[in-house]
Order: sequence, then C-alpha cells, then structure tokens
Amino acid sequence: MKKDQVKDCEDVISSMEFIVENINEVIKLLDREAIICMLQKILGGERVFLMGAGRSGLVAKAFAMRLMHLGFTVYVVGETTTPAVRPQDVVIAISGSGETRSIADLGKIVKDIGSTLITVTSKKESTLGKISDIAMILPSKTKNDHDVGGSLEKSMRGDYKNSPPLGTAFEITSLVFLDSVIAQLITLTGASEAELKSRHTNIE
Amino acid sequence: MKKDQVKDCEDVISSMEFIVENINEVIKLLDREAIICMLQKILGGERVFLMGAGRSGLVAKAFAMRLMHLGFTVYVVGETTTPAVRPQDVVIAISGSGETRSIADLGKIVKDIGSTLITVTSKKESTLGKISDIAMILPSKTKNDHDVGGSLEKSMRGDYKNSPPLGTAFEITSLVFLDSVIAQLITLTGASEAELKSRHTNIE
Amino acid sequence: MKKDQVKDCEDVISSMEFIVENINEVIKLLDREAIICMLQKILGGERVFLMGAGRSGLVAKAFAMRLMHLGFTVYVVGETTTPAVRPQDVVIAISGSGETRSIADLGKIVKDIGSTLITVTSKKESTLGKISDIAMILPSKTKNDHDVGGSLEKSMRGDYKNSPPLGTAFEITSLVFLDSVIAQLITLTGASEAELKSRHTNIE
Amino acid sequence: MKKDQVKDCEDVISSMEFIVENINEVIKLLDREAIICMLQKILGGERVFLMGAGRSGLVAKAFAMRLMHLGFTVYVVGETTTPAVRPQDVVIAISGSGETRSIADLGKIVKDIGSTLITVTSKKESTLGKISDIAMILPSKTKNDHDVGGSLEKSMRGDYKNSPPLGTAFEITSLVFLDSVIAQLITLTGASEAELKSRHTNIE
Repeated sequence: MKKDQVKDCEDVISSMEFIVENINEVIKLLDREAIICMLQKILGGERVFLMGAGRSGLVAKAFAMRLMHLGFTVYVVGETTTPAVRPQDVVIAISGSGETRSIADLGKIVKDIGSTLITVTSKKESTLGKISDIAMILPSKTKNDHDVGGSLEKSMRGDYKNSPPLGTAFEITSLVFLDSVIAQLITLTGASEAELKSRHTNIE
Repeated sequence: MKKDQVKDCEDVISSMEFIVENINEVIKLLDREAIICMLQKILGGERVFLMGAGRSGLVAKAFAMRLMHLGFTVYVVGETTTPAVRPQDVVIAISGSGETRSIADLGKIVKDIGSTLITVTSKKESTLGKISDIAMILPSKTKNDHDVGGSLEKSMRGDYKNSPPLGTAFEITSLVFLDSVIAQLITLTGASEAELKSRHTNIE
Repeated sequence: MKKDQVKDCEDVISSMEFIVENINEVIKLLDREAIICMLQKILGGERVFLMGAGRSGLVAKAFAMRLMHLGFTVYVVGETTTPAVRPQDVVIAISGSGETRSIADLGKIVKDIGSTLITVTSKKESTLGKISDIAMILPSKTKNDHDVGGSLEKSMRGDYKNSPPLGTAFEITSLVFLDSVIAQLITLTGASEAELKSRHTNIE
Repeated sequence: MKKDQVKDCEDVISSMEFIVENINEVIKLLDREAIICMLQKILGGERVFLMGAGRSGLVAKAFAMRLMHLGFTVYVVGETTTPAVRPQDVVIAISGSGETRSIADLGKIVKDIGSTLITVTSKKESTLGKISDIAMILPSKTKNDHDVGGSLEKSMRGDYKNSPPLGTAFEITSLVFLDSVIAQLITLTGASEAELKSRHTNIE
C-alpha cells in the first residue's frame, strides 16, 4: 500500500455514522430496570472493582477513573495496589462476548467469595451473563459472532448498515453507557464541581 | 446517598443521547484534508507510537491495539518494551486540551528527534496543536474549558444540550474517530479477515 | 503505631544481609546446563514473550525491557500491542510457586500453540515446571510454602537465617538471575554500547 | 549469533556474584539516620504515593504492592484510580540518577503541593536529591555515569569488579533495600500473618 494512493476518507465518515446508528439502536433496547439495579448495587457496595481484557479492559479503566473522581473507593483488577475482594464489594466485568476466558474465570472466583458481580455484555446467555447478579445487556455484535475482522470488512464493502465492526460497536457503546452512568451518579450523589476537581490527578 | 433513593435512570438515557448529538456535530465539522494527510503519514511511517495521559491515554491504547491487528509496528509510550523513537517514525498524541503537560513535553522531544507528530485534539491553537505536523481537530469542549465537573453538572441539570460532560465528549469522539480511521485503513491495506484474526492475542 | 516509636532500623540491615545470603545460596545450586539451554532457546526463538503475575510480573517486565535494549523482538503478555504467539516464539513465565493460576492456564495454551515454554520458578514439580520445555529452578521458599507473611514475620523475629520473606526471596533472586542472563547475552551477541543506547527509550 | 555457539554460562555466574558484592557495599554505606526518618515519614503520612520511570518504576510498583499488603493506603502515580496528591501525603520517587526528567518535574509539583517528598537515588546532588525532604542514598553507578551499556560491556570484558552494569545495580539494590524496609515496617506495625494474607489479591 502506497501512501499516495490515499485519495479520500469516505470510510472514516461512513464508519462514524454507522457507530452513531448503533448507539441509537442500543439506547432504544436498554433495560431500564437493570440500569436502576446496577446503580443501586454500585451505591450500596463497600468498594467497586472493575475488570476486562483487551479493549474492554480499557473501557473498564475509563469508568474506574470517573468513579474515583466521584469519590468511590475503586480498583482495577490487575493493577499494582488492588487488594483482595471481599463479600461486601461490587465487581463489574466488561466483556462483549461474556466468554473471555480469564474474565469468566475471575467472575467465578468473585461469586465464590460472595461479592456482587455485574457484567456489562452483549450476550445474556453467556458464561458471565449467567453467573452475574446483574447482566447489563448492550445488544451489539461482538468479535465472536463472526470471524474476527469479517464483519468489519463487510461493513467497509458497503454492508456496514447491518454489521458493526469487530467488538468495536460493543466497546464504544459500553464506554458511552458507562459515562452516562457517571452522569446519573453525579445527580444522585450531588457531587459538586469542587469535589470532582479536587480528586482529578494533579501529577500526570 | 441511600441506594434505595434510586428511582429512575433518565440521566443515563439523556446523557447517551447527548453524546450521540455531539458525535454527529463533530462529523459535520471534520477537516477531510487533515484526515487524508493523517492516513498518508500513518501509512508512510516506519513505526507508529501512541501517547496520551489519563482517559486520552486509554483511547491511544485502544487505537494502538487495532493498528497491531492490522499489522503495523506500533508502540504505546510508557509501556515496557517501547523502544526509542527515530526520525522516520510517526508519533500520535491524544490530548483534548492540547496542553497536557507531560504529553506536550514529549511532543517537543518528538519534534527535536525529527519524527512526524500528529495530535488529535479539540484545540488547534494549543501547545500541541501548534507544534504538530498535523493537528487533527475534533471540536469538543474539554475539561479545561470550565471547572472540572462544571459542564457535567450543568448538563445533568437540564442544560446538557449546550455543554458536553468534562473531557468525556472529546474522549468518546476521539475513540469513535480513530476506530473509523481503522475502518479506512482496512479498506486501504486490503487486510483480510484471516490476517486480522491471526494477530489478535491468543493468550489473554 | 506512632511514628516517633521508630528508634532504629536494624531489621532493614539484617533483612538486606539475609537477602544477600539467599542469592549466594542460589548461585551455588544453579543448574548450568539449564542456563545454557535457556540461552540457546532465547537466541533461537523468533520473538520472546514474557509473562508473570503480581511482583513476578514486574520482574518479567524488567527482563523484557533489557531484551528490547539488546535488540530482541520482545513482548509482555497483557500489554497493549502484544500480538498472538506463534510456534516459533519463546515464552518465558516467571512464577515462584509454579502454580499461579492465570499463568499456568496461559502456559498450557502456549504448549498447545507449540511454542517453546521456559519457566523460571523455585518448584520443579509444579504445574508450570512440569509442562515447560525448560524449568529454570531458582530454589527459594515462596509464599505458598507457608501462610503469606508467616516466614517474613518469623524472619523478623530472629529466625531470619532459615526462612526468606514471602515470595520476596524468589522475586529478588529471579531479577538478579535474569539481569545476569542479560550480561551473558551481551557477551554472546557482541552488542555495542552505541547499539544499546540507541534503543533506550527517548520519550519517558 | 548462532544459538549453538553458546558453550558456557560463566558470565551469568560472575554477574550474579558481582551484584551481590555491590549490595554488600551499599549495606556498609547506608545512612541509618535517613532510614529512620524515612520510616517515620511513611508511618506519619496519610497516604503513600510511589513514582518512577522505566525499571525504577517497576521497583516502585513492587514496593507499593507490599505496602498495600501491610494495610497502607498506597497509590502508584500513573495508574488508573490514583487520586490527587494532598499536603498530608508522602510521595516516594525512585530514580538512580535523580535526574529522570518526568519524575523530576513531578517532584517539583509535589513540593509545590506541600507534600513530603522522599527520593531513593544514588545521587545526593541531583535535581531530585536536592528538592527532597529525604534523599535516601543508595550509592551505585547509574546509566548516566557512562554511556549506556558502557559499564556493562566493560564488566563483561573482565573489568566487572569495578563497574556495575547500567542502572542494574541501582535497580536491584533499591528493590532489596525497599523490601527490607517492608520487613522493618512489619516489625513496627506488628502486622500479623492473617492480616497480610487477607489483603493479597484473590483475583489475579
């Protein structure tokens, strides 16, 4: 591929439009009772732990950072100073397929400990979906639906209306959803500007 | 805040709708010439380096992971095996304000080395925007526009049509934009399903 | 504990002396044939992958960084741009007990892929020790020998000559050993000062 | 370099012996008053923050993990949920040269905030050494003494008695020192086996 063969960027625009359509679709399908339960569990837990692999792990971290700004005691599984999980804690797993091996294994341990497990996933009938106290469903196609890259290629060849790229649709939708959960938590906790600002890292 | 005070989740829905509006707004304002230049630089560089702080750093990692799937030689600044940057490399910085101190400092070093610097930012006239070879502008309000949390609180108190939450709008929009750059690169490189799948980590 | 109760630092000194004794003990017990095999595998592999959990994972990263300086193509499992492992690659696991669940699970996958698996461990008869092509034994007591903290407390109460603190003895010894493997690889590859320096990150 | 050219592993053994000699040398030169002050500051601070770049950053994380096991509220600068530093906190920087740019910049910010700054370094007269409340000196040659790799090469060519490899000597010595500080803190806090074990991560 020669760089001077780049003539346009139409796929960038159409892919962005496709992602927006996908988020709009998910908004319509959200289970509001599940969201309310999730908010109650987060507010009722002693501490919150986030976990996810790959790009879902990055979404988990983005949510954890905002919870910290809000004043929650929050940890990301796998980081240096993350302590042992206890029964009164809430653990939130992010997994599009609900089958990510390492995360599903940890999910089982979390249930053995007796903690609350919430999974944000696109598959209710997945391993993680079935063992969770709350399966928060964001209905997106994930990379396990098709061969990896398959749907992405198809979408770029004109069929993108029907088929989200890889796990991309799930990852973006879960980030948008979780940032909106933060918005709700700000309203619920009445956190002030000054409080949020005072916790944002001052040595980055 | 008692958990049983959670009665509804209207802010979750309205925040998601607000984020969608914001992405739609950015799509209209994108500089297509800048996107084409960015694609040319990425394809023409020897290796690609990504950098960002905080949540922008997570977006940088999400993009880096996809570039790896596509077969690019790509590194995230600050990870264990990231080597020295050389003049023929392309460095992409993600910074909503364009002023994040550590990233701006590294941006200056990158220019001293003689590498190509691309900044994805909402501020053309920022420190990073001004020293970059390409300033890819995603016009969003960032956390430096207002006191942190200010716009988020306002948005949750009914004024959300005019004011995106914190840096959230920028971070989500940059993730959506960069995932769409990936879609374009798939078309441009003609990467097949099998190739993408073969690079996705098999030990996570 | 009041801070003004700190009267001396004798435990710091005696603990350092104890750690030195432990390293000296390990030097005597090293299997030189295993070291030579390990060096051959590292030099003969296409790429090198490092993995470990907790503090052993930090040792894995410290070794990976030096291999990168030496010019090896090297990745840390779990970092952003780490690609799929292939049969011609060498995977090095660090695990004091040889039983760390997530690492043992990955070790099995590595053997299924057909790659070379080297485990640096203190237990030859462990899960990882048994499935590895090379089990590089550093004979130290690990945190699984006793209750966590047990040996450390004992050592601090006067019995430290016989009992290394937690997994600390293993972690330090494995770092000292692997840094010394780097010394040997420098001799073997004839890497020059200029080459090493040219790869050390210039944007940290 | 052909893998079958590996005939022996004498450099591994001699490098390990050299590292041991270096630790023994440092033990003799430690400033015990400084250690006592450091212990008092750690015990007297509200929270403890660790920071370091590259391999020194890995040492910082290894120490942070043990402080968490001991029950301290501890954070690593740059990790996801690390909050803002406050005046009553203690920040510990690890830097062999005391000149690592990003860490020195953060050190200045820490002093502006009014927090206690402790630097573990080999250079009292360095930027970080000079601005710190306590400069804990571990007298080792660092990679800034010579061209990177220079001392390592020399040491491998027979002159290793006088010249430690790269920053390796500092990094290993600081890990040994800080693990020994943990031993002292266990004695001082009277932490029991059960307490330590209860905090060790149960989902890794």
